[in-house]
Amino acid sequence: MTAKKRIAVVLSGCGVFDGAEIHESVLTLLAIDQAGANYQCFAPDVAQAHVINHLTGDVADEERNVLVESARIARGEVKNLTEYDAKDFDAIVFPGGFGAAKNLCTFAFKGPECEVEASVERAIVQTREACKPIGALCISPALMAKVLGAVEVTIGNDSDTAAGIEKMGATHKDTSHGEVIVDESAKLITTPCYMLDATISQIASGATAVVKKVLELS
Amino acid sequence: MTAKKRIAVVLSGCGVFDGAEIHESVLTLLAIDQAGANYQCFAPDVAQAHVINHLTGDVADEERNVLVESARIARGEVKNLTEYDAKDFDAIVFPGGFGAAKNLCTFAFKGPECEVEASVERAIVQTREACKPIGALCISPALMAKVLGAVEVTIGNDSDTAAGIEKMGATHKDTSHGEVIVDESAKLITTPCYMLDATISQIASGATAVVKKVLELS
Repeated sequence: MTAKKRIAVVLSGCGVFDGAEIHESVLTLLAIDQAGANYQCFAPDVAQAHVINHLTGDVADEERNVLVESARIARGEVKNLTEYDAKDFDAIVFPGGFGAAKNLCTFAFKGPECEVEASVERAIVQTREACKPIGALCISPALMAKVLGAVEVTIGNDSDTAAGIEKMGATHKDTSHGEVIVDESAKLITTPCYMLDATISQIASGATAVVKKVLELS
Repeated sequence: MTAKKRIAVVLSGCGVFDGAEIHESVLTLLAIDQAGANYQCFAPDVAQAHVINHLTGDVADEERNVLVESARIARGEVKNLTEYDAKDFDAIVFPGGFGAAKNLCTFAFKGPECEVEASVERAIVQTREACKPIGALCISPALMAKVLGAVEVTIGNDSDTAAGIEKMGATHKDTSHGEVIVDESAKLITTPCYMLDATISQIASGATAVVKKVLELS
């Protein structure tokens, strides 16, 4: 019997406007389980950039921690991203949500001049050096462009975001629902998800397509 | 062309230990969309019973609102449950999580002597009076036992919880993953989900089974 493949999933909080997009995160976990692989969630142990009231869209006068809030999606089973070691995993996947562009890096605030959180940068670089696949949904490809530079990615068809990504040295390809862009040499697989207007079934289809390709390349 | 059926989904916060179970909630929304129906999320506009740090399991010194936190799962598209009118919907579904037993009612604290939040009780009674189907996942059947009394439900196989449910006048049937108990006369469909040790794929299977039966009876 072959051991199950193991995929690390990096969360960025809990909620589309200030953390990990919940549908993308859950449907990534579902796709991994349905493909017969195991997942382990990780998140950086840092303060959220801010807290957004998801009912009103206003910034709330609160502080929350990315690792603690990510534990909501992971039902408590989440590790500090500093504990991630690429040798223990077959691949790593980053769901989207503004958290990826506010907490994992600062692309939402600073565009191409953004900084990347240290444990996030280390995880991406280490996985790339180990020649293991990286999946990135929604806005997370911006993170890959910043850390990896000359890679081919998609965030859907938003021209401003695509321009920002190209300024960081990456190449952007327009895509639609459930489509993935595969950069074979970087083993990087990306899909737009909620960067497009999407139904939740279309998110499932995007997450499933990324996980399938990630497993193929692992 | 037939109009799409409309299902109301009642959330109880955002996170298994103090709110709506996130996987059950998302996979209920997915099942509804995949079945070709529409959903609208609702939640009561009340304070959470408490806030649990999902990483440590400790009670946190914070206050959060059930409607505001539910908006994280609903991507902002959630309505105050006082706005729910059974005549606008074909059915109503309650995902689980401790929020159903802490925020929608107080079963987690008081067992069979629990109180039910007013807008929640009204929504259940109104839907029952309109003879429209009600779906309940995980611990939510406890809520139905309290409000509807002599109904047949399942919360899996936990004997203490089952005993509490029977004290409220309902009948409990043991079930396993993906199985539903259908009380035909009350049009009430229940399934255990995370009341059992479960994989996320098993949660998808339970949510899909409930939604399928709810739509059949609507």
